Amino acid sequence: MNSASGPAAVPSTDPLSIAAIGGFHVGGRAYRVAGAPTRIAVFAPGGPARPFDPNGDYVVGQMYVQYVRLARPRAPLPLLLWHGGGMTGVTWEDTPDGRPGWQDFFLRAGHDVYVCDAAERGRAAWFPYPGVMPGEPVLRPLQEMWETFRIGPAAGFADRRPFAGQQFPVAAFDGLARQVVPRWPGNEAATIAAYDALLDRLGPADVIAHSQGCGFALGAARGGPGRIARLVLLEPSGAPDPATVDLSAAARVPHLAVWGDFFAAHRLWREYRAAFERYAQALRAAGGQVDVLDLPAMGIHGNSHLPMMDRNGDAVAALVADWLARHRAAGRLANPPTPL
Amino acid sequence: MNSASGPAAVPSTDPLSIAAIGGFHVGGRAYRVAGAPTRIAVFAPGGPARPFDPNGDYVVGQMYVQYVRLARPRAPLPLLLWHGGGMTGVTWEDTPDGRPGWQDFFLRAGHDVYVCDAAERGRAAWFPYPGVMPGEPVLRPLQEMWETFRIGPAAGFADRRPFAGQQFPVAAFDGLARQVVPRWPGNEAATIAAYDALLDRLGPADVIAHSQGCGFALGAARGGPGRIARLVLLEPSGAPDPATVDLSAAARVPHLAVWGDFFAAHRLWREYRAAFERYAQALRAAGGQVDVLDLPAMGIHGNSHLPMMDRNGDAVAALVADWLARHRAAGRLANPPTPL
Repeated sequence: MNSASGPAAVPSTDPLSIAAIGGFHVGGRAYRVAGAPTRIAVFAPGGPARPFDPNGDYVVGQMYVQYVRLARPRAPLPLLLWHGGGMTGVTWEDTPDGRPGWQDFFLRAGHDVYVCDAAERGRAAWFPYPGVMPGEPVLRPLQEMWETFRIGPAAGFADRRPFAGQQFPVAAFDGLARQVVPRWPGNEAATIAAYDALLDRLGPADVIAHSQGCGFALGAARGGPGRIARLVLLEPSGAPDPATVDLSAAARVPHLAVWGDFFAAHRLWREYRAAFERYAQALRAAGGQVDVLDLPAMGIHGNSHLPMMDRNGDAVAALVADWLARHRAAGRLANPPTPL
Repeated sequence: MNSASGPAAVPSTDPLSIAAIGGFHVGGRAYRVAGAPTRIAVFAPGGPARPFDPNGDYVVGQMYVQYVRLARPRAPLPLLLWHGGGMTGVTWEDTPDGRPGWQDFFLRAGHDVYVCDAAERGRAAWFPYPGVMPGEPVLRPLQEMWETFRIGPAAGFADRRPFAGQQFPVAAFDGLARQVVPRWPGNEAATIAAYDALLDRLGPADVIAHSQGCGFALGAARGGPGRIARLVLLEPSGAPDPATVDLSAAARVPHLAVWGDFFAAHRLWREYRAAFERYAQALRAAGGQVDVLDLPAMGIHGNSHLPMMDRNGDAVAALVADWLARHRAAGRLANPPTPL
């Protein structure tokens, strides 16, 4: 796989010509609080204590999208980047060791890029009063990330001793602790509704999803190529039982799965992968296309669960960009964002 | 004030030539959780239920920064945009009615722009386990924003009847409910520490702060022009008693305060403004410079507490950009962000 390590995989650092950059919220539903007690608080340094009444009207479940549209996009559809569990769109920005991330790579590859914060996370916000969020949130500790992201053996965490050949920039591993945000297990319906609202506005779109985000993207792709035109699944954390879903429309959406290394060391990841492979087999049986980049089998060793942050992240991105280009249908240009 | 409404205030829509775009976290401190019970949860749609152990190592109090650096910046220093209370950097992106915001304006005006999410908000994250966040968070209801942001009289909220001449795009007012995030009154020390860490990395910088953010920026400016070179305060929500702080270094930092309209209708805002004016008088007495754009007194009527979202937001931005340009010292070019 020379193409994954040769000069062609290194993106240009020439200036980018940008038509527009900004952000917006989409989706969500009205929610009213009534009967809650008033509080007293100081809201600005040096300001007076004043009453605060939480009763009133809100929107809950919205999501946030940061967009960068090129002056001369070469890809016909917008590219949406969907992060994984406990993460935000920061996943796609600078790597923990300060290299440009996949947002930058795919802009330079000619895509209009939309980086999402799914409902409940990051700039999408969450709701602090009763009745909306399900149960208690959890936040990933570093030790859990070390294991779940397949950086190294559990026993290697204390002295940051990774798997041999690890591509993740381990010296910057602790920086990941700054990127994670609380999540609410069981709140998937809100995120699915928000992604639906986003695709209502922007679709059809190409989507690159990571980990938990792949579950949301697989669901959206079951809406057919009018929703997601081409779907890239980076390390999907499982997939639904194919007997429980209708794959007829998804069969018209090309899927690409990308797998890193070190599955032998992690039973949970083998289970996730087996669930995805059952789904992929059913999708193929329904006439669909599921391509796979099994990186170690291609001679690209050492990738973690976070290939977009790994030291060879640009090389993996180049393989994904190449797949997208080869599967690009003649499509319409994305419309610019319009007011909500 | 023809300059505030004439064609000169309308920024170009030509493509922007961008050297780099991305985001990073800065600041925060290590925190360890011990003795907490393990939970059971399903973490991915279709995935298995599995135990989650919250005990372990975290970083708390970090902040998030999104940067866009121009290929050929005309301003010598980075421009940092600091949002107000209960908000995030989204404040500076598209307005609620979908126009380009001040991030776009100041990029087109030649500034490298760094949009911040202060500690606890947006992509900066917050901490869901005990011992870090002070007390309970609050989230602004729409009614509170209607009054505090001086959109209209309290009695006008139900049918969205604003003050006469209101510049805020009232038809899109409800979209503000999607932008707000929970805040913790009393958590100011974490935000101050995070902004200090940011200025350690990027300073000296020019800063435009809004509302609560102005309190943090006034504090940083008391570190002198090696921290904040020029400070723009959009509608500061008060200021400390000048007898309690040392203004000697701040006296070497040019300050500009910008005030909108409708103060007569709002006692709290008159108190905030009076507190700021006492601070400004003391700063001037210490040899400092505090310029003021009192927009209604200049013939620019109808601005809310959110001038960056108001329909004449570009015109107000042009006045700020002009002030920054006139007070620009010969300074060094900003260094690009370096790895943490």
